[in-house]
Amino acid sequence: MPPPQLMLHPVDVDLTTHVHNALQEFLEQRRAEIDAIDETVAAAMDSLTRFILDGGKRIRPTFAWWGWRAGGGRPESPDAPEVLRAVSSLELIQACALVHDDLMDSSDRRRGQPTLHVRFAMQHHAAGWAGTPDAFGLSAAILLGDLALAWADDLLYDAALDQSALARARPVWRAMRTEVLVGQYLDVLAQARAANEPETAMRINRYKTAAYTVERPLHLGAALAGAQPELIAALRVFGTDLGIGFQLRDDLLGVFGDPKVTGKPAGDDLREGKRTLLVTLGLQRAEERGDRAALTALQEAIGNPALDEAGVDRTRGLLHELGAVDAVEQRITGHTEAALAALATAPVAEELARDKLAELAIEATRRDH
Amino acid sequence: MPPPQLMLHPVDVDLTTHVHNALQEFLEQRRAEIDAIDETVAAAMDSLTRFILDGGKRIRPTFAWWGWRAGGGRPESPDAPEVLRAVSSLELIQACALVHDDLMDSSDRRRGQPTLHVRFAMQHHAAGWAGTPDAFGLSAAILLGDLALAWADDLLYDAALDQSALARARPVWRAMRTEVLVGQYLDVLAQARAANEPETAMRINRYKTAAYTVERPLHLGAALAGAQPELIAALRVFGTDLGIGFQLRDDLLGVFGDPKVTGKPAGDDLREGKRTLLVTLGLQRAEERGDRAALTALQEAIGNPALDEAGVDRTRGLLHELGAVDAVEQRITGHTEAALAALATAPVAEELARDKLAELAIEATRRDH
Repeated sequence: MPPPQLMLHPVDVDLTTHVHNALQEFLEQRRAEIDAIDETVAAAMDSLTRFILDGGKRIRPTFAWWGWRAGGGRPESPDAPEVLRAVSSLELIQACALVHDDLMDSSDRRRGQPTLHVRFAMQHHAAGWAGTPDAFGLSAAILLGDLALAWADDLLYDAALDQSALARARPVWRAMRTEVLVGQYLDVLAQARAANEPETAMRINRYKTAAYTVERPLHLGAALAGAQPELIAALRVFGTDLGIGFQLRDDLLGVFGDPKVTGKPAGDDLREGKRTLLVTLGLQRAEERGDRAALTALQEAIGNPALDEAGVDRTRGLLHELGAVDAVEQRITGHTEAALAALATAPVAEELARDKLAELAIEATRRDH
Repeated sequence: MPPPQLMLHPVDVDLTTHVHNALQEFLEQRRAEIDAIDETVAAAMDSLTRFILDGGKRIRPTFAWWGWRAGGGRPESPDAPEVLRAVSSLELIQACALVHDDLMDSSDRRRGQPTLHVRFAMQHHAAGWAGTPDAFGLSAAILLGDLALAWADDLLYDAALDQSALARARPVWRAMRTEVLVGQYLDVLAQARAANEPETAMRINRYKTAAYTVERPLHLGAALAGAQPELIAALRVFGTDLGIGFQLRDDLLGVFGDPKVTGKPAGDDLREGKRTLLVTLGLQRAEERGDRAALTALQEAIGNPALDEAGVDRTRGLLHELGAVDAVEQRITGHTEAALAALATAPVAEELARDKLAELAIEATRRDH
């Protein structure tokens, strides 16, 4: 028997490169259109293009692709390149989400580089233009994020999918976009309210991350393949549990991760006042135990922009002592097991898809960055 | 012969009410979906809904509707309600544009009410929430604007158009969205660069206003009707010229309009440093005449946030003396005549559409608000 990787199609093996190429082709066409409108906006367009093409792990297109494969899509079929375009469009929604998120969070850096609004503010400053650099950076980031969001639809419809496939994908697409935006607003609201209910943290995880990052991409891919309702239901359970596990791992890394590996300053999630499950469980347990000192220390640390390294360390210690870290680890294990159980009995069209999805589940919940 | 209005269908007569109803129906369905996700976001949703339903003259759906009527669409036909939905979706793009624009311009008021970001900042302040009111207002306005933009697509596809009509509308829709966002960025860039070329001002007018407000809506409507290329070409010429005339009238009202009628403080366009044709022509003429005093006075006034009432008056006088006001009025007349000439020979399906479009052209270029 040949080793399993020999059975894989090139797109299966190197999906991120193929997603990159689909995005590049689309963005080059947009660049030509924009040049016809006005050449002076080319530099702005190039910044957005670089941001999109340099980006990330392509996690959403990857889940969508394997959702399609699980539903019976074949990488050697004539519609595979069109499905590849359709799933790549998820990266354009993500580009909007990141650019607008960085602006809302006033984040200076992403992936070790200045964020888009900071880049444009720097350009304004260097050129000595009228108005303030911050206002220019804000305007550029809002408009380029909007452009990415509008283009996401365009790339989805550029894919020459047949009408029935598009009709199946459409409700998933629209649910996903509403869910992620409502989830983000819920997150902003929870931070403002200093919400301390674990239920709210879990609802944000459900919509902002799980639905948007795993469940709906899988659902979209399976819908494109015309998968049976039983498979779609199983993939959505898998995706929801895995997506929650993924977010809980992210929450732990946001407080305990090694900055050298995560690329983010340690403790930034604490300073920003993110109302994660980790933090809300810490608060809840301190209250249940009647530990006023721990409760006060946590309340003073979370959302304190001036929290120093020692304060971050103390907060880490508290979250450990209160059992919040163990509780989150247990939940990650529980959600991952539930996800894998749903996957194990899902009526996938190909065992390869099951194996690959299981592998992605482990990566997403056991990663260190 | 009966008076002409008796020949009009109810939708033709009271289009804005029908657009309002189509938007209301769509937003009520979204509200139900969002309630299922999380009830605490309902208040935010209500603010967005009120903003959309209270809004404006419905100018873009109106042009799109009459483009469809000019192309042979019949208001009593079974597809008329679906076309009405499709053209109403333009108001959701406009909601995004206004919410994001007000944020970029730091505008406090629109239509005599606090702008959306200000409304959310006030809510934050009143509740005494964590973080700053401004940051909360910014986040809410970005996310709700994004939601409106995503929903615009959803409403377009909610319309049960036949596949061929949707396929004809799609390229117009995508061109329009890219054009308005590139046009807006061009405007932001021109303000930053303190651009003084009338050509740049005209290019901004062309894309930010003419294409987005008149040309593409007409084109979209005509495409939905399956209009012949000759009619589409004529409507696009009409729309472009009319749209430019509309913007030039707006530029004049921004400096000379009566605040009681326009609802905007007099001189705000000057304080913001908008690089309108009016202003760039004033600068150009002062330079051509070698009038250093006038040039310096204009340069100091434009983009000066502290410009007082007397300064606004002086600038008005200068723009008159330099002939910039007359030049803009002449251009408005020229573009309006060119628009009406294109309309006069356009092969419209119904004379009523030609009459109505001529009426809209006069309204748009001779208005006082």
